[in-house]
Amino acid sequence: AIIVYRLPWTWKCSKLLMKFIHAGLNTIAMILVIIAIVSAFDFHNASNNPNMYSLHSWIGLTAVICYCLQLFFGVAVFLLPYAPVRLRAALMPIHVYSGLTIFGTVIATCLMGITEKLIFALSSPSYSQSPPEAILVNCLGLLLVIFGALILWMVSRPHWKRPREENAKTLRHIGATPEGTEAESTMTNSNADKPDPRSNTEAARKQNITFDEAGQRTTM
Amino acid sequence: AIIVYRLPWTWKCSKLLMKFIHAGLNTIAMILVIIAIVSAFDFHNASNNPNMYSLHSWIGLTAVICYCLQLFFGVAVFLLPYAPVRLRAALMPIHVYSGLTIFGTVIATCLMGITEKLIFALSSPSYSQSPPEAILVNCLGLLLVIFGALILWMVSRPHWKRPREENAKTLRHIGATPEGTEAESTMTNSNADKPDPRSNTEAARKQNITFDEAGQRTTM
Repeated sequence: AIIVYRLPWTWKCSKLLMKFIHAGLNTIAMILVIIAIVSAFDFHNASNNPNMYSLHSWIGLTAVICYCLQLFFGVAVFLLPYAPVRLRAALMPIHVYSGLTIFGTVIATCLMGITEKLIFALSSPSYSQSPPEAILVNCLGLLLVIFGALILWMVSRPHWKRPREENAKTLRHIGATPEGTEAESTMTNSNADKPDPRSNTEAARKQNITFDEAGQRTTM
Repeated sequence: AIIVYRLPWTWKCSKLLMKFIHAGLNTIAMILVIIAIVSAFDFHNASNNPNMYSLHSWIGLTAVICYCLQLFFGVAVFLLPYAPVRLRAALMPIHVYSGLTIFGTVIATCLMGITEKLIFALSSPSYSQSPPEAILVNCLGLLLVIFGALILWMVSRPHWKRPREENAKTLRHIGATPEGTEAESTMTNSNADKPDPRSNTEAARKQNITFDEAGQRTTM
């Protein structure tokens, strides 16, 4: 879901379609997470283990709550056509930041869960005697870290960012520099919505935001 | 060390001084990490525990090796005055990306280590009975996640990025738009060193890189 806007072969699809895919994948993930949490609680209750005592559970539940809030506000602000464009521009960098932070936190939670499970589940030979199962699951944990690093790489490369076609085209017509199409990368979208004393292209920037808004409106 | 370029009150200090502080803090951290690893191995050997069996140890050692490589290449490329500016420009986004990835991996490693320690060290009452010590250490783990999230926030805000004064000043003199000062945020430095077919300000960009190089040279 995170890299759905970073696949060049999808750039010819409409932004609205991509938003639906992004929200849809996240909704599926949220449903699976809720099933997983319910089954974890059921398993604890059935085996007379206490719930919510471990750091894994604390951080995991925090991440799931943040994830649900992220999905709710994401749909309310960016998918539904009610939020004003200024609000969207102001919240987009926060949405990107919190999405990536939740993603990283979820991977850390998985690694803690794997550690717990290996310690509790393996006995004779125990985890510390490195049976084949421990080696296999350690490798899976390493792959999880590599997966997270790859996603972070894909998300942070500016040339994999979906271009704003309408914006660039319109600006080219009026002869302004389409800097907005490049200046705003993954982590820098907030550039657009605050004045910058270092810039001497403030007028072009404001024009840019206007056409940006037009571009966003056409995708709704 | 990560946010050393993100403190506005340091922007009046020279870039070279800040580079030395960045490299110095990382060197201190590396020395502490090596002492910590040696003491962990010593503790395992003294208590007849095997080394390097856990996911915590695998990911932790990988992170430490990557950290040492990051520090070595960082000093070789960005601190010592031998690397050509093109190479610096090409490697900077990789340096930023790998620094942040190692930082996130280290926090995940800490959380796994905390989980292990709580499970192994607490008995009667055990970790699952939530003694005060478990609650306290869980809270410390949560604070570690909040710390990581705050650092990521500070690093990814474009208005906390150290401005490139020389670059902006020079460009203002010749009347070009100083877009480089804004377009290049934490994760987007690679913009400068590759052609972008979407831009119609390619000439200004190239000019910008040239002055950028001049700016970098003056800080060495």
